[in-house]
Amino acid sequence: MATLTVPAGVPPVAEDCEQLRKAFTGWGTNEKLIIDILAHRDAAQRRAIRAAYAETYGEELLRALNDEIHGKFERAVIQWTLDPAERDAVLASEEAKKWHAGGRALVEIACTRTPAQLWAAKQAYHDRFKRSLEEDVAAHVTGDFRKLLVPLVSAYRYDGPEVNTSLAHSEAKILQAKIHDKAYGDEEIIRILTTRSKAQLLATFNSYNDQFSHPINKDLKEDPKDEYLATLRAIIRCFTCPDRYFEKIIRLAIGSIGTDENSLTRIITTRAEVDLKLIKEAYQKRNSVPLEKAVSKDTTRDYEDMLLALLGAEY
Amino acid sequence: MATLTVPAGVPPVAEDCEQLRKAFTGWGTNEKLIIDILAHRDAAQRRAIRAAYAETYGEELLRALNDEIHGKFERAVIQWTLDPAERDAVLASEEAKKWHAGGRALVEIACTRTPAQLWAAKQAYHDRFKRSLEEDVAAHVTGDFRKLLVPLVSAYRYDGPEVNTSLAHSEAKILQAKIHDKAYGDEEIIRILTTRSKAQLLATFNSYNDQFSHPINKDLKEDPKDEYLATLRAIIRCFTCPDRYFEKIIRLAIGSIGTDENSLTRIITTRAEVDLKLIKEAYQKRNSVPLEKAVSKDTTRDYEDMLLALLGAEY
Repeated sequence: MATLTVPAGVPPVAEDCEQLRKAFTGWGTNEKLIIDILAHRDAAQRRAIRAAYAETYGEELLRALNDEIHGKFERAVIQWTLDPAERDAVLASEEAKKWHAGGRALVEIACTRTPAQLWAAKQAYHDRFKRSLEEDVAAHVTGDFRKLLVPLVSAYRYDGPEVNTSLAHSEAKILQAKIHDKAYGDEEIIRILTTRSKAQLLATFNSYNDQFSHPINKDLKEDPKDEYLATLRAIIRCFTCPDRYFEKIIRLAIGSIGTDENSLTRIITTRAEVDLKLIKEAYQKRNSVPLEKAVSKDTTRDYEDMLLALLGAEY
Repeated sequence: MATLTVPAGVPPVAEDCEQLRKAFTGWGTNEKLIIDILAHRDAAQRRAIRAAYAETYGEELLRALNDEIHGKFERAVIQWTLDPAERDAVLASEEAKKWHAGGRALVEIACTRTPAQLWAAKQAYHDRFKRSLEEDVAAHVTGDFRKLLVPLVSAYRYDGPEVNTSLAHSEAKILQAKIHDKAYGDEEIIRILTTRSKAQLLATFNSYNDQFSHPINKDLKEDPKDEYLATLRAIIRCFTCPDRYFEKIIRLAIGSIGTDENSLTRIITTRAEVDLKLIKEAYQKRNSVPLEKAVSKDTTRDYEDMLLALLGAEY
């Protein structure tokens, strides 16, 4: 369900490197060439290009990109070129250090990656920052958000399909009781959301729906402006309907006065190799307009071209 | 610093399997032969024996051991034969499910293994129990202990040598202030102990000592019978002086009225391939008697022989 398109006859890595080098040298930068190559190579191919480029030219590809291109285009190209685990580490670090209640990168990384992918991101975090993701989140996030987000990024959840239905039933009851008491920051809510496996949580939310006749997220909307409640809902949606969750992030990023490029870039670069096709379908369904068209209307020039390439637009 | 002794000419795996099979069949079980083989093979060799045994005889070696031997001898042999990560998973699961305030297996596994070893134990936990260590600890442990132990087993700490000395200084101050206020369960104490790297924590405890003229553990002794404080001290000792920490566990296990075989077996089987030589030295120094002699005095028969073999006693 990826949107990434890789041409049938991918050139040898050495040729990609040579072309990129050409794009950087001479009169001005050839942005189109950068997009033509990098936006149409998968993670393994980009990794090989980075390694070969560093070996051939004695300079990191990311450093060269950093010198040659700028602004939101630079951010999109670099974020995309990074390995998925490295990219998650960078996004998580940025958000942890400048943490604000509306941030969603940590929630997305903790809840939409597989446990193995989350662990790979934590390893990449160690390698790159010489610290752990957990300690940075714990040191920078405060209050109820800290109580929620530290365990959320820490736990190595079970990834199997096994479900304990009686546990789902009883934990749905616990969640309902705490929510009914407006004890949204209660330890038990946090314990359940941050430690149970995805399969178990889906069973719990289904049981909630069955027992109380409406979805749990409906009960978490008491105050629509409460960012903590919004974070709880985001966690639940990341597990239950990631495509619709991501569609909404993109919709709000585009729809706001002044595009929220960081969110838009984050979703497109992190999902292009995963499920961006599903997100596009959800977008079309919800907004009656193709996502490419909406992105094109809201962005310009090289940045626009880069996003459209990742969205799989014909070119 | 291991005590495990592996003979110079280890027989081929097939021969070890055949000998074990012989030990199980015929008139009675040949316990000596079981010890001679398994207690003198390293983790990789034991893994190979288990795989070959299952393939040759269509039965798990651990199942055969389970049928043939019993009681504390069985427990010691099986615990030892397990892979280190699997063994940690089993010990952690046992303690999580029958959790009591004096339990130390979770603390030891979280604080004396490397971050990579802890992660391997969590993977083994998934494979074996179809659940996560985090969720079992969170579901069974309660109160202040839960607030401490869940993050303790969850965090994937940074493992490098880098230390931020000004951070060590400021976090030592935070620890002292909270301890001074007797706020032992405070979030900040838990945050620091459960997320910082080992190197960073050692720097913090050193800074504590420098700034306040005595070790942090001295300030955590207000009530010697308080098990929560004892757990905090155990965590700190597992980081600062694991050999002396383990020495004390063994000393208390042997010294009590009625030997605490579970603790004794746990320490010997988990440390024989790691640092049991250092623990033996610490024991001799503290008790003026060799550990082998003390163990021999307090245990009998096959169980005694198994522990002595793992302790590297000449035979």
